[in-house]
Amino acid sequence: MDTIDELLTNNRTFAEPLADRHLDVEPSRQLAIVTCMDSRLDVFAALGLGDGEAHVLRNAGGVVSDDVIRSLAISQRRLGTREVMLIHHTDCGMEKITDEGFRVELEEATGIAPEFPIESFKSVDESVRESLDRVRRSPFIPHRDAVRGFVYDVDTHRLREVEADD
Amino acid sequence: MDTIDELLTNNRTFAEPLADRHLDVEPSRQLAIVTCMDSRLDVFAALGLGDGEAHVLRNAGGVVSDDVIRSLAISQRRLGTREVMLIHHTDCGMEKITDEGFRVELEEATGIAPEFPIESFKSVDESVRESLDRVRRSPFIPHRDAVRGFVYDVDTHRLREVEADD
Repeated sequence: MDTIDELLTNNRTFAEPLADRHLDVEPSRQLAIVTCMDSRLDVFAALGLGDGEAHVLRNAGGVVSDDVIRSLAISQRRLGTREVMLIHHTDCGMEKITDEGFRVELEEATGIAPEFPIESFKSVDESVRESLDRVRRSPFIPHRDAVRGFVYDVDTHRLREVEADD
Repeated sequence: MDTIDELLTNNRTFAEPLADRHLDVEPSRQLAIVTCMDSRLDVFAALGLGDGEAHVLRNAGGVVSDDVIRSLAISQRRLGTREVMLIHHTDCGMEKITDEGFRVELEEATGIAPEFPIESFKSVDESVRESLDRVRRSPFIPHRDAVRGFVYDVDTHRLREVEADD
């Protein structure tokens, strides 16, 4: 069976025994989590998160891009969140490329230079600190007191906190 | 207890009984899923997804922003994915704002006009079609044959497919 069709079958099996219920669009824990798209991080399971509790933002690297700033601005200004948890992880694909190398690859393949930043990084701890800093410097995000950064170990499933630069 | 500290305790409880194991950075189902940050969508549970199977990208609305194009380009060109599944949902916060209204709100609050697009929408089906179209038009994404779009009903937990414009 095709992969997407298989997931649709899984969804019917998942939904079938559940009663309909409406949860509020505003996350009950007033928290937004920003993390990587990596396939080995099941955020709800790994944090014991329930439905309706927290926003979950994910991209390549878990970096604080303009799109993450946009999403956090909406999350805090319109949907009531107050805290931000950033989670990067070990063995990340973004450590395996370079900005310049991937930019050249895209330009050679398409004839077009991408206008977006690539956001590769060499050190996951430095990348977490850079992301913490970007959140804390953004005026579009009103609540910046409770912003904490972590590295998730994809082998041991454990989180380790990274302290921000002062 | 503070919310983030509580989630850290949950993570220790989650990780403790699990054996260490290493899964490959390349998703085994060769699939990337793009969806909204909404707190009521536990993607792994709702699709019966296992660890290591698919990339999961999430932002406000599940829209195909430049950051999603960046992430999909890395996902396909460096991490072996071939298919894309887009999932928007009912009762989305992005239907409750307007681009102009939120842009003015940000500018009035900060004195700075945001350079990023807001990406609000009026119709979730139209938003899925717009996102399908953006993926299919991007030369940075090499595999664009298997791209499908859905709406998740946050009350019934079920997915409904949205057909692309021709």
